[in-house]
This record gives sequence, C-alpha cells and structure tokens, in this order.
Amino acid sequence: MTVDAIAPRGVDYDRVFNQAIDRLHAEGRYRVFIDILRNKGAYPNARCFAGHNGPKPITVWCSNDYLAMGQHPKVIAAMEEALHDVGAGSGGTRNIGGNTHYHVDLENELADLHGKQAALLFTSGYVSNEATLATLARLLPGCVIFSDELNHASMIAGIRNSGCEKRVFRHNDLAHLEELLAAEEPGTAKLIAFESVYSMDGDVAPIAAICDLADRYNALTYCDEVHAVGMYGARGGGISERDAVADRLTIIEGTLGKAFGVMGGYIAADRTIIDVIRSYAPGFIFTTSLSPVLVAGVLASVRHLKASSAEREGQQAAAEQLKTLFAQAGLPVMASTTHIVPLMVGDPVKAKKISDILLAEYGVYVQPINYPTVPRGTERLRFTPGPAHTPAMMAELTQALAEIWTRLELRQAA
Amino acid sequence: MTVDAIAPRGVDYDRVFNQAIDRLHAEGRYRVFIDILRNKGAYPNARCFAGHNGPKPITVWCSNDYLAMGQHPKVIAAMEEALHDVGAGSGGTRNIGGNTHYHVDLENELADLHGKQAALLFTSGYVSNEATLATLARLLPGCVIFSDELNHASMIAGIRNSGCEKRVFRHNDLAHLEELLAAEEPGTAKLIAFESVYSMDGDVAPIAAICDLADRYNALTYCDEVHAVGMYGARGGGISERDAVADRLTIIEGTLGKAFGVMGGYIAADRTIIDVIRSYAPGFIFTTSLSPVLVAGVLASVRHLKASSAEREGQQAAAEQLKTLFAQAGLPVMASTTHIVPLMVGDPVKAKKISDILLAEYGVYVQPINYPTVPRGTERLRFTPGPAHTPAMMAELTQALAEIWTRLELRQAA
Repeated sequence: MTVDAIAPRGVDYDRVFNQAIDRLHAEGRYRVFIDILRNKGAYPNARCFAGHNGPKPITVWCSNDYLAMGQHPKVIAAMEEALHDVGAGSGGTRNIGGNTHYHVDLENELADLHGKQAALLFTSGYVSNEATLATLARLLPGCVIFSDELNHASMIAGIRNSGCEKRVFRHNDLAHLEELLAAEEPGTAKLIAFESVYSMDGDVAPIAAICDLADRYNALTYCDEVHAVGMYGARGGGISERDAVADRLTIIEGTLGKAFGVMGGYIAADRTIIDVIRSYAPGFIFTTSLSPVLVAGVLASVRHLKASSAEREGQQAAAEQLKTLFAQAGLPVMASTTHIVPLMVGDPVKAKKISDILLAEYGVYVQPINYPTVPRGTERLRFTPGPAHTPAMMAELTQALAEIWTRLELRQAA
Repeated sequence: MTVDAIAPRGVDYDRVFNQAIDRLHAEGRYRVFIDILRNKGAYPNARCFAGHNGPKPITVWCSNDYLAMGQHPKVIAAMEEALHDVGAGSGGTRNIGGNTHYHVDLENELADLHGKQAALLFTSGYVSNEATLATLARLLPGCVIFSDELNHASMIAGIRNSGCEKRVFRHNDLAHLEELLAAEEPGTAKLIAFESVYSMDGDVAPIAAICDLADRYNALTYCDEVHAVGMYGARGGGISERDAVADRLTIIEGTLGKAFGVMGGYIAADRTIIDVIRSYAPGFIFTTSLSPVLVAGVLASVRHLKASSAEREGQQAAAEQLKTLFAQAGLPVMASTTHIVPLMVGDPVKAKKISDILLAEYGVYVQPINYPTVPRGTERLRFTPGPAHTPAMMAELTQALAEIWTRLELRQAA
C-alpha cells in the first residue's frame, strides 16, 4: 500500500474551518473585539485602540464591573500588598502547593456572606457552574436536572457534561416546572438549576416558590447569583439574601469578576457538598488555583460591600434614571426589574451598526449582544449603568441613541 | 394526592454525598490542602499555617512556578503598573468590554513565541484544553480523536465533551498510534492529542515522529506544552521549539501559570483555527477575561524568558543534581528526562505519611500525588527543583528522605 493509497487527503480541514467562519459573517454575527484600556480611578472613562490613530477616549456602558469595585482603592491596595508579600501566581493546584492562606480566608468570607457552612473557589464563574453541576449530578445515580430555558451557557455545559437527563422548563414558569417535577418517579434524584438575575433581560427568578417546589418534590436547588452577588441584599448576598431564602437553597453560585470587580467564581453550600465537589470535580482539582493577588483583592471587595450599601444604592438610582430617560425618548427599553438596562433591536446587523456608530461618532462603548448569547431575533444593546455614571453621561447617551434611532429609522417603543 | 404521596423522600442526598467522601477516606486518598503563603523574593521559602501555632517556615519542593518567575521583579513591577493604570479586573468577556490592550499584546507575543499566526488566551490551561478540543472536534463531522493514555484530565474532559469517537493509544507508543490511525477510513477527520512533557513522570513525547504519522494519515495535531513552555527551546517555546517542530503542529497549547509564574492558558495556531475557537468555544466566549493585571505580568515574564536562558539552565542543573543525590542515597527516583523529579512510593497511605513527616519534622513541603492524578499503585512524591533551590537545600532534603525511608522501611531503588 502506498502513502497515497492510505491518505487520499479526504478531509480539507481549512475548508471546514473557513466555512464555519463564513457562516458567522453571513449571519452578521462575526465578533470583533474592541480593544480598550480602562482609566483607573476614572471609570467609566477608558481608551479605545481599535481602528484609530492611538488611543481615543471613550465612556464604557457595557462593563460587568457593576459597582466599579475593580477601581476601588481598598481593592487596589490589597492586591498591591499581596503582590509584594507572596508574588504573582499561586504556583499550583489547590492540592499541590496552590492553597494559600488568602484562599482559605476568602472561602470563609464567602460562606459567611451566604450563611452557608462552606464555600469553594474556582478560576471562573463558568468553571464553577460547569464543574459543580456536572460533578454533583454524576454522583447521583439516575439524577434528572430541571433547567430554566434561559440558563447561562456554563450551566448548560455542566448539565450536558453530567450526562444526566435534562428537562428544560419555560423561563421562570413555576407551573411548567411543577409539571415536569411531577412527571418523574418520586424516588428519582432531582436537581433544579436556575439563575436569580437573568443577565440579558434583567428579570428575577421566584426563588422562594422554586424552593417550595423543591421541598415538595425532594429536589436539590442550584441558584446562579452571578449577576446579583454584591448588588442585592443588605450585605450583598444577592437576591437570595434580599428575599431571605439563602438557607433554603442547596447551592448558591457566584462570581468574583462582576460586582466584586476582580476575577474567579465560587459556590457556597453545606460542608459535605463542598467536600464532595472539592474532591471529585476535575475542573476544580486539575487547575492552577486563582492567583493570591486576585484573591486578596476580592477579600477586600467582599468585606467592603458587606459593610457599605452606597455602591448598591448608587447603581439602583442610576439604572432607574437611565430607564426613565430611555422611555421618555421613545427608545424600546426592555422590562428589566434590576440594574440591567437592555434596548431591544431584534437584528444582529442593526445592533452592530448602532454600536459602531456610538463608538466612532460618540465615544460611547456598548457591545451588541447577539446569538448565541441571546436567542436569534432578540439581538440587543445592553447597558449597565453604575454608581460612577453621571447624569450628564446619561443625558448624552440618550441623545446619541435618539439621534441614531431616527437616522437608521429603527423601531421605537410600542 | 397528598404531599407525602408525591414525595416519599426517595433519595437521601446527604447519605449519597457522605458515602462519596467515605470512599476517599477508605482508599487513603482524602485530600487535605496545606495552607501556605510564599515569601516573595525568598522563594522556595514559605510559611505554613496548617495545624500549627502561627505560621511556620517551610521550603516548597512541589510548586509549578518552575523558574520562580512569579517572584521576578520585572513581573511584579509590570503587574503593579497595570493595577494602577487600569484596575483589578477586566470587567467583562473578551467580546463585551473585557478585551484590553494587554490581551491583544500578549496574544501577539505568544503567537511569536511559537512561530504561529495567532494565539488565544483562556482563563486557565484546563479551560484552553477543554474548550479547544471539544470545539474543534465538534466542528469536524465524524472526527476521531487519538489520545495518549497519560493525557491530562483537561484534555480528557475536552475529548469527552466533544462527543467524538476516541481511540486511546499506549503512552508514547508510535506503533500503536499508527495501528489505530490505519484502522480508520482514509476520509475520516482525525486529531492526535498529546503532551510534550508528561508532568507526573517527566518523560517527553516523540513530537517529530507523531507529526510524521499525522502527515501520513492526514490528521491534525494538538500538543499540550504546559510543562515545557518557558523551560525548553532557546526562547522558551517548549519542546516543539527545542526539537524544531513547532511549524508541524496544528495547535500548541500552553499555560501562563507554571513556568511563566502567573495564571491562565492559551493556544497558538494559524489564524483560521484561532478565529474558529474564538468564535465557537463556549468556554472562551462566556467567561470574564483574564484580569489585565495578570496579563501584564505574563507579558513581562514571556518577554524576559524569550531573552534569558539563565533560569532554564539553573533549573536543568538543579534537576540533574537532585536526581544524582537521590540515586546515590538509594531512593527510587523515576526515569525522568526533564526537570521533574518523581520518587515512586506505590501506595497512597505511605506517600501521605512521608509527606506529613517531611512537613512536620523537616519543614519540607512536597505533596503526595495519588489517584486520580496518577494511576493507582503508582502513588509518588514529585519534586520540582528550580534555579532557586540551593545545594544545601537539596542535601538536607536527600538526608531527610533517606532517614524517613529507613524509618518506614520503604522500598529502595532496584
């Protein structure tokens, strides 16, 4: 047999990959990353590098550093101290050399934040969702997972990777969830996975009612609070603190990269569950732990937001004001009940065009949100006003959008 | 139907989880994390907090900060500058507000390091392996993945999550790999996934010969260089640079958390493949990007190690010396050809006991390595000497081990 007979170049890999990219262009959802640097201490001011001669000043309207804690002097000081005390990285997995005293302290702090026995850090919120859901469900023979249809991609990945049966319930639809729960055998292990604040719509789950169903059908509950921790509840414990239901949830998952301003993810639960995930989840075991510099910064951030509500109040006031301004200008602002302010566009090409004009002509940076982050046909712009966005910035933004809406002949609010 | 009839408390979740923990105790592989802080500028010196009255000085022998770059003044200075320039976190995904100029610069730097057109950052090496392998293979209809039996857990996760057919070849066994490749239809898409340096044994893959097979059978190649980047090759490009085969590999994967001393992972490849992964991998898309503080530190680290070979030479000399000392003392040092120095114990309880004695009596920190990190029956201690470990430290360590080996009546080298 000759070489040619063995390998007739059956697969043209380049062609397959180029076709995959072409599909994105054809659908108008090829993503271009905007190259920016934030100006520390002056957020939401930043510099933009893309397609310009040198950096250009911009205002950032789409950051998930919701409370500007990534710029807080206490956070910066804590990170600087850790950097000089222990160095840049952890140097290992949590089990092999990478378990620093900062990690231990932060896990205790996060357990306390949610009134749970223990907590566990992950390198990201994505990994915490993927690793925990996949591992938990795999340990429960025959487990069925009940998943809200708008759950984040990381939860969907964890559920898929668990290999369990999945039942998707309509978004926040308790009747549908109960119907699905009731259809299973009583002896089946069950896990309900959902978010507290849905980040692209800004609506909130009925946690207490979901816990009632969980009690009734003997199901575990997993609540993703990444868009709520730091921002809701008297100490920033999230919607579950605000609604006084944290003790009813089996597992609360959160992020250190949004309101807490740094990077990383975590879960909080009872000691046994934390021990199980710590001991069995590949995504936790086989990875270098978070840099102690980051962990030190988060410690300062969590402690500050436990004691201070000024940032939360500033954020809520800014969100209220922006929603009002958008509505007054006839812009199609969506019915968010939280700090997230989405404007519906409904088309990926138009959403990108608005974003491009805002950046090029107005120095406003807001990223278009398209599939697969949101369902096709619901493409949108998503604004995240915070305590550092001034009334003048909001007025300018609203005026710019109104002008673009007219120029492009876009649909106004109904 | 009453509530009791619906929910007869079929599953006792606590019992299932406690049994999972009990299994670990029964097998002697329940993991206890040692709580430490490194002393910046004095590595491998550190402080240990576990089970003691206040911190106790220790010497770290199991860190993957192989070249002590996590303590390098250039790295610390770069991180401090970024911290003050842009703040703690990136504030978003790469697509939504989290694409900083540091990220763009580092990707260019890493592409150059491996002589590839482009590179892509991930939050960890684990995620880079999982996301890339799963996404790449899913885009190739009918793809079969050929995986070395000792591949890291993160590669195994990616391969499993791709849903593709998998063929496991015996470790570094070219004949077996060829047998498996030849057994597939010529028109089948194929991907060979392997590591360059296997981290628990310290041996090296025959990259050139694997590339020959890949050419012959029209397969893509994916090479995990996490235990080699920074440490091999004239500029730290890894074994693929040392062996001058980087241009023959489809994808090179590396970490920023080991020799580069900080945190994160990456891939380098041609522009189309990077664009495909960037556009389709959930583990890349749906996660907050690396903190710019970390990215700035890595930039300094990569640039330094491209120009300086002193750290690499110091590490190789230290590894040679420690292997010689161990062999002279009759300790069962394994046949590593790299910087990794493993001592075979072959029993999880004994490995943990040696480690406990070293820490409590000698102030030496080396973690026992047990299942699932290594196969059962091959439990070991794994030492990672670097340029900062002195001859005096090595002599003390060897003496301590020889004493413990006698005390516990352990097997000597054959």
